[in-house]
Formats: sequence, C-alpha cells, structure tokens
Amino acid sequence: MKLAVIGVGLIGGSFALALKKAKAVSQVVGVGRNAANLKVALERGIIDSIAADAASAARDADLVLLGAPVGQYLSIFNSLADSKALITDAGSTKRDVIAAARKALGKNIARFVPGHPIAGAEKSGAAAASAELFRNRRVVLTPLAENAKESIAFIETAWSACGAKVSRMDAEEHDSVLAAVSHLPHLLAFALVHEVAGRNNSAELFSFAAGGFRDFTRIASSHPEMWRDICVANRDRLLDEVSRFSKKLDHVKALLDNPEKLEALFAEARAARDAWIHSS
Amino acid sequence: MKLAVIGVGLIGGSFALALKKAKAVSQVVGVGRNAANLKVALERGIIDSIAADAASAARDADLVLLGAPVGQYLSIFNSLADSKALITDAGSTKRDVIAAARKALGKNIARFVPGHPIAGAEKSGAAAASAELFRNRRVVLTPLAENAKESIAFIETAWSACGAKVSRMDAEEHDSVLAAVSHLPHLLAFALVHEVAGRNNSAELFSFAAGGFRDFTRIASSHPEMWRDICVANRDRLLDEVSRFSKKLDHVKALLDNPEKLEALFAEARAARDAWIHSS
Repeated sequence: MKLAVIGVGLIGGSFALALKKAKAVSQVVGVGRNAANLKVALERGIIDSIAADAASAARDADLVLLGAPVGQYLSIFNSLADSKALITDAGSTKRDVIAAARKALGKNIARFVPGHPIAGAEKSGAAAASAELFRNRRVVLTPLAENAKESIAFIETAWSACGAKVSRMDAEEHDSVLAAVSHLPHLLAFALVHEVAGRNNSAELFSFAAGGFRDFTRIASSHPEMWRDICVANRDRLLDEVSRFSKKLDHVKALLDNPEKLEALFAEARAARDAWIHSS
Repeated sequence: MKLAVIGVGLIGGSFALALKKAKAVSQVVGVGRNAANLKVALERGIIDSIAADAASAARDADLVLLGAPVGQYLSIFNSLADSKALITDAGSTKRDVIAAARKALGKNIARFVPGHPIAGAEKSGAAAASAELFRNRRVVLTPLAENAKESIAFIETAWSACGAKVSRMDAEEHDSVLAAVSHLPHLLAFALVHEVAGRNNSAELFSFAAGGFRDFTRIASSHPEMWRDICVANRDRLLDEVSRFSKKLDHVKALLDNPEKLEALFAEARAARDAWIHSS
C-alpha cells in the first residue's frame, strides 16, 4: 500500500510510522508547508519522499491521510477532487470537515471516510511522531451514507494496525462529545495561562505555580493554529459548552457560602473522576 | 528533636518522613481523626506513637506541625494554647490560619510561625506520604512580627532539611498568589468534572475523554474537605480570581469570531507556559 500524508505532524507522522511498523504500507509520500519539518520526517524515515502538493502526492497513492489543521482542508480537498485514492482524515471536528469534503469532492464524496484519532499531545511536528501514539487509543470514524462498506472497513483496518480501538459515531454527536471533553478544556487552559501571563506580577505568579498548575495547563502548550481551527469549526458546540460551564462555575461560586454543599460537589467530582480513571 | 504532627496525611506524613531521613528528628508523635490512617502511619514508620489529642502530643514536643485541613485549625490551636513547643503549619491559606492562631494563642502567638509547602498531590493520607515530596519544591513562610528570628530560622532549617526551597512572603500576598495559580485551577477542575459527570450521557463523554482531560482534571481528585476549607478560607481572593477568569473567558468566547486574534491569544499562552516550564 502506498500512503500519502498531507501534513506530516504529530498525528500524520505517527500514522505513517505505525503503519510502517505494522508492515501495512510499503511507501509513504509527504506534503507540508514547512520544509524543515518535512526534512525531519524524511530523516526519521516517516516518509520516503516529498511531493510538491496534495494532488501529485495522491496520484499514485492508495490512501491519503489529511493531518493538517482543519482550516486547510477545503483547499486540500479541492486539490484531491480528481484523485482515485481513498481519503481519510485526523481532524478533531467532523461536521465542518465533511461539509468541506462534500463541497470539494462532489459526487466523489464516497471516497472520503472521515475519522478522528483521539490521541493528541502538547508536542507537535514530525519530530514528536511515534509509532506507538495510537496504541490503545480511541479512533472515531464518522462514516458517510455514501461510503462503501469496504472503504470503511479499509480505514478501520488501518487504524487497528496502529493499535487503536476504532468505533463509529455520527458527526453531530462527535462534535458535541468532543466539545465537552476536549475543546472546552483546551479553551479553559489557554484562557487561564493567558490571564496569569497578562498580570503585572506574572513572574511571581508563575514562580509559585506547582504541579497542579502544570498539569492543568499542559494542553495550553498545544498547537495554536490547530486549536484555532478546531475552536472556530466547532464554534456553536463550544459556545454551548462554555455557557454550561459558566453556569456551573456560578453555581460553585455560590457554594462558597455553603461549605457542606461545596464539599459534597468536590466529593462527587472526585468520585466521578476516580471511577473514570480506574475504568480506563 | 521531638516532632508532633497533627493530621498525619500526605503533607504531615511526608514532613515527618523527610525529617527522619535527614536525621533531624528522633521521635514523632501523631494525632488524627482517622484511626486506620494513624495505623498506616505507625506501620510505615512515619510516626513512632499516637497521642490522644493535640495537647498531649505537644506536651513533650519541640516542634508541632499542623497538617490537618485548615477548617480544624482554630480548635487545634485552642488545645495548643498552653504548649511550650514551637508551632508551624502546612495550610494552603495564611490569613485565616494566622487569625485563628492569634485568637487561640493570644500572647503566645510568637510561638507560631506560619508556613505553606507548595507540594500537593491528588493522593492523600499517610499511605501517600514520601520523604521526597518536598525535594526542590517551594515552601513559603509568612512570619509574624512577633516571631523571634531564631524561631523563623528553626522552621526554615527544618524545611531545608526536607530538600525544600524556602522563601518568605506577606500573608496577604500569599493568599492572592495562591488563589490565582492554585485555588482557582482546583475550582475549575472540580467544576468541569462535576459538569461532565452530571450529564445524561456522562458515560459516553468520559469514554471519549483522553489524556488532555485526564491531566486537566487531575487536581479534581484532590481531597474534598481540604479543598472545601481552602476555598472557604480564601473566599474573597478566590471570588476575585473567578471574576477575572470569567472576563477572560468572555473575551476568548468573543474571539471565536476572530480567528487571527484567537490564534494570537493561544500562541501567547503557549509561549508563556513553555517559558515557565523551561525555566522551572
């Protein structure tokens, strides 16, 4: 199998490495905006060659993976309109990605099977890619009515070969679920760090920040452009989540006058998190 | 040196273990509400004996450490009113602790040197205590005008023997700084987990939560009673921080319509965090 990776970052690079390790691909061609990053990808053996653009990369490929920030998808899909390859993606939002694919691919939409590996990291680029990134991680496919069974199965098999646990979901549901457990936390972490960094005494504040702050804000070291695109693409669901969270925060604020209920809320949160950690 | 630890949890237990390891104490007596936890502390060699109450524990002690949730401090200080031992504490808030000490100790207030080791963990109890917990961590002392130089130096030496980096700060400033970089993040993490756990589809939401959510919410597995007391004690400063954060969140929300500025904010947050991580 020949694989084309458009955007050889943490996700695209790790997909290529994992499939190579599983001997599921024989050759990988990479495309990207950053020449230095592509050079790292070549040197690390993530890709075997560099193509000038998505169209030429896809020409001889059996499978194309989009690993770029979702804001670039429409233009990438446009250049893949005449390709014969099966296409999948790693975008963190799915409704916007599907809309862009429908617009660009038209009647060839069946060739696109949307997907989302839930396996990020705050590191980015080919240098951070790892064949083990997806091991025991979830990958959600949000197949289209037009997809052939065989196409979906092909993508499922590829992600399974990476060690991932693959499941299927509706794109609407995907975007709601991820807004709550991923997009909102990222927004909150970026907001908190930005708030602290903007204070006159930010140096003092950071100097007394400890392990709790470090872990809470880890995702604020994520890729700014990628997260800009995700937040903008999933704006409606994210706004819903921000509203719900603000209401909860108002509720917790009010409980600062009611220690007993405040402790009960903390205990419920702790119990829910601990149950999740122990089951996962 | 004989040490009395009132509240042999993660912090109190680690203080005893670290001082024993440094051969700075010869004997430790423990007091606590939880008999099973005290048994663990005895078995692990954290304490050498159990006293019935703070007053009797302090009777032969040179140093008393308060490691209980700060809500219990007033009653503990009351029972230490006639003790001759030097007293310090590990409370995460300082204004309320000092007020309680002044009320209970009266003219003996000079014997109390307030302190705060900034080295928590989401685990609690004597079972989680470690001689290494404070190594390279910061300990803030907020000394009182009444403290003798020698008393402050004694407490500084004890924490230094634990491997900690000791500094001094005003109690007002301490409570403001910690509200921003510790108390607020805890409140946000508890709030987010509680919000997700309360949804009808919480099982689904948790099942798609990944590493970002896990780290962001790690501090929501913290001790509910301890955090209730901290939040209530530092209520005014915490409310200030919640207000500032809510404003920032409104600002970020508005930027969902302005991708360029949203990305700039994310990039500024990431740069600030990365600079902090690399310098710490």
